[in-house]
Amino acid sequence: MAKELKNFTKRSDNYSQWYNELVIKADLAEQSAVRGCMVIKPYGYAIWEKMQRQLDDMFKETGHQNAYFPLLIPKSFLSREADHVEGFAKECAVVTHYRLKNDPDGNGVVVDPAARLEEELIIRPTSETIIWNTYKNWIHSYRDLPILVNQWANVMRWEMRTRMFLRTAEFLWQEGHTAHATKEEAQEEAHRMLNVYATFARDYMAVPVITGVKSANERFAGAIDTFTIEAMMQDGKALQSGTSHFLGQNFAKAFDVTFMNKDNKPEYVWATSWGASTRLMGALIMTHSDDNGLVLPPRLAPIQVVIVPIYKDNDQLKTISERVEPLLTELRRRGISVKYDDADNKRPGFKFADYEVKGVPVRLAIGARDLENGTVEIMRRDTLEKETVAFDGIEDEIVRLLDDIQTNLFRKALAMREAKTYTVDTYDEFKTKIEEGGFILAHWDGTSETEEKIKEETKATIRCIPFEGDPTPGKCMVTGKPSARRVIFARAY
Amino acid sequence: MAKELKNFTKRSDNYSQWYNELVIKADLAEQSAVRGCMVIKPYGYAIWEKMQRQLDDMFKETGHQNAYFPLLIPKSFLSREADHVEGFAKECAVVTHYRLKNDPDGNGVVVDPAARLEEELIIRPTSETIIWNTYKNWIHSYRDLPILVNQWANVMRWEMRTRMFLRTAEFLWQEGHTAHATKEEAQEEAHRMLNVYATFARDYMAVPVITGVKSANERFAGAIDTFTIEAMMQDGKALQSGTSHFLGQNFAKAFDVTFMNKDNKPEYVWATSWGASTRLMGALIMTHSDDNGLVLPPRLAPIQVVIVPIYKDNDQLKTISERVEPLLTELRRRGISVKYDDADNKRPGFKFADYEVKGVPVRLAIGARDLENGTVEIMRRDTLEKETVAFDGIEDEIVRLLDDIQTNLFRKALAMREAKTYTVDTYDEFKTKIEEGGFILAHWDGTSETEEKIKEETKATIRCIPFEGDPTPGKCMVTGKPSARRVIFARAY
Repeated sequence: MAKELKNFTKRSDNYSQWYNELVIKADLAEQSAVRGCMVIKPYGYAIWEKMQRQLDDMFKETGHQNAYFPLLIPKSFLSREADHVEGFAKECAVVTHYRLKNDPDGNGVVVDPAARLEEELIIRPTSETIIWNTYKNWIHSYRDLPILVNQWANVMRWEMRTRMFLRTAEFLWQEGHTAHATKEEAQEEAHRMLNVYATFARDYMAVPVITGVKSANERFAGAIDTFTIEAMMQDGKALQSGTSHFLGQNFAKAFDVTFMNKDNKPEYVWATSWGASTRLMGALIMTHSDDNGLVLPPRLAPIQVVIVPIYKDNDQLKTISERVEPLLTELRRRGISVKYDDADNKRPGFKFADYEVKGVPVRLAIGARDLENGTVEIMRRDTLEKETVAFDGIEDEIVRLLDDIQTNLFRKALAMREAKTYTVDTYDEFKTKIEEGGFILAHWDGTSETEEKIKEETKATIRCIPFEGDPTPGKCMVTGKPSARRVIFARAY
Repeated sequence: MAKELKNFTKRSDNYSQWYNELVIKADLAEQSAVRGCMVIKPYGYAIWEKMQRQLDDMFKETGHQNAYFPLLIPKSFLSREADHVEGFAKECAVVTHYRLKNDPDGNGVVVDPAARLEEELIIRPTSETIIWNTYKNWIHSYRDLPILVNQWANVMRWEMRTRMFLRTAEFLWQEGHTAHATKEEAQEEAHRMLNVYATFARDYMAVPVITGVKSANERFAGAIDTFTIEAMMQDGKALQSGTSHFLGQNFAKAFDVTFMNKDNKPEYVWATSWGASTRLMGALIMTHSDDNGLVLPPRLAPIQVVIVPIYKDNDQLKTISERVEPLLTELRRRGISVKYDDADNKRPGFKFADYEVKGVPVRLAIGARDLENGTVEIMRRDTLEKETVAFDGIEDEIVRLLDDIQTNLFRKALAMREAKTYTVDTYDEFKTKIEEGGFILAHWDGTSETEEKIKEETKATIRCIPFEGDPTPGKCMVTGKPSARRVIFARAY
């Protein structure tokens, strides 16, 4: 069983299959009976909860409050904003009836044709429309602004090809929806929240991200500007990990939301929205994990430290447990999540493999000889390095190690991204390089036509026009027309 | 505006209208554009978050983990458990299609008839079916048991008549779903979680509840036994505030979930489920609030203390702010949620009224004369008593007061319930008494026929057969047949 647990497809053989197996073997999620919808299992959900809690704290620190808006949206709302409906109507779950009845033929239940809705309802793919329809009643004067609201919710997009965490029909996310009196304030908010995502990715997920603005083709349906954080996965593909949209007055106009400004004149309200989802789980997995399973940054690990006793009989177990007890207390006092696994229906080898697959950052093993010698074996998951060290003072060593793992994971991910980021000047070179995976910095003439041509021919998209890095203008690698600056191309999840 | 805020319908005039107005004026929730679905506003949601956090902690302390299961359930799943389908098929939102398309006539979007689902999907009214279909793959041996899982989710029941928080088409809740190797263990779990609800209601909501078992008529569809906590609202009506179900092997049989026991023989798994919802918000409101608005127990108040400066000019405000600053720091250090409202676009009178309507437990007001005298005015929301006290040491007084308010609210609610609980021996007396509202302890012969007759004739239902109180047998007030013990009748929300 221990062997089976760790018997993964190697990343180098088939990255995609490695990912699918990892999600299952680390007990993160599984497919459900409903097409494209996953079950998030307790261990996977515990990681998501840690993400949620941290993001929620950061949203509240930046002045936001949570609220809750309806799951269902009247069909007609979608049509109010012209771009929005194009983007979201294609993949909606549609509620048409509100009752089942016993099948007259005795085969279970059937839809009751008498219970047809006058207007069909859509399961929210995103909530701009229902929320702006609500804000209409909340906003009258500049005194009612800003509104800084977030909601944690499930949403549904009827994707044809789904992959757990990365693209599922139903997913969990948060969506912030803010309303402002001025354009500048809304733009500032959109940037602020993008930075919250970037900070969260860096400091908690240990995932380096590039911040930037999307090209028109990749923009959120209904936005003036979409800002994004883009991470690089180990296979060199990009994963969009969070987006923030400056919506201008588009939704205010679509839902007729105006306010009286300080001069007592009516104006349309300015808007932003921003979201991050269970997709972050995919980013976390594909940034750090290895051929032995999940690797978790300590700050998001449900179990940060596991201690496994190695014993021959109950007396030995008792002695070990007595030795370990004050350590557990001390670690918990320091806010470290520690598990002492003295379950006697699994052997140490199985436990080791299981916690390795689950990515527990630090593992301690303590046996009879350690008791004699006053030692303990300590292993760090990121490098798999083992060491036998003095038991006394181990709590300080654990704290140090957790910090070091967190830092090391970020450093490794950053080094990988840098190694796989290329500057390219000709389209021929681009076509060769893109096959290797990675981010390509290249000049582009700013047109959707060129972007689409590149996408068709190479499957690469513009991930963003980055906010940082070399701003020198140049010439488009495809058309030779002027380019304002290099943008980032990649194949993406 | 201050006057308008407080200009409520009196409870004694029209309790139902008072409730509806309070929900709006205290900024808790409002109707949405979707029939029967509410928007939970930030202030209302902040209270719900406090409930969630506390319940979640209590679930985790009793060994439960969170997970997430799909929103949509295949229609056929509902039919697998005979009682369950009768209870839930009648009021389901049914997803029949997965795509919209542009209306050929140019009128927005229409359902694409080509995108019809082979099998319709139901928005979960509760998740026993999809979860037990999942557990089938999780459970093989007694070693896989127990499974102690909870999920926080939205659910939907297509209610015909809705009222905010009390009965809405969509509502938020948690649903625990546990799997056990033995009947005894499952029964113990169902009782344990009922006690968690009762403890939460008492210690956090300051709501006294009666625990007991439901009669067959009021049982959850698919359960062997439903346990309940029943609270009495100020109008004497009962509100079922949380239920816990012993499901026996019903769902294990319906979804063919067996395990190998220690003797290596297959057995069906034993189950429980338990849930509490945003309905608790209704219970909270209708237990404590008064004709001036919401009254919140300090332990669930998003703002526990508000401090309002009363000033003529900026210099005065500055002096007051400097005086208040260390108090804010000290209160926050003690974990008290305090707001200093120095907003200059609202007058103190408006602020007072607003915080009163919102039920903030303690209000401090501090003006120029207080600065001179070293005093502060302190008001407690539960009794509306005002006092001018020394500013020095006010933090201890605040802590004492918050405790006192929490205790006092429970004591008052308990006294009200006791005053409105009657013991009745004849059906005639019952019919008179039930008109006054309140709980009636009466003998009942244990049959559904008698229960239904009473319900038809008086609109009263059996709230529960209580676990505590006088267990003496007697004779049914309607039929004169033997009764095992008195049960609790009431009209209910």
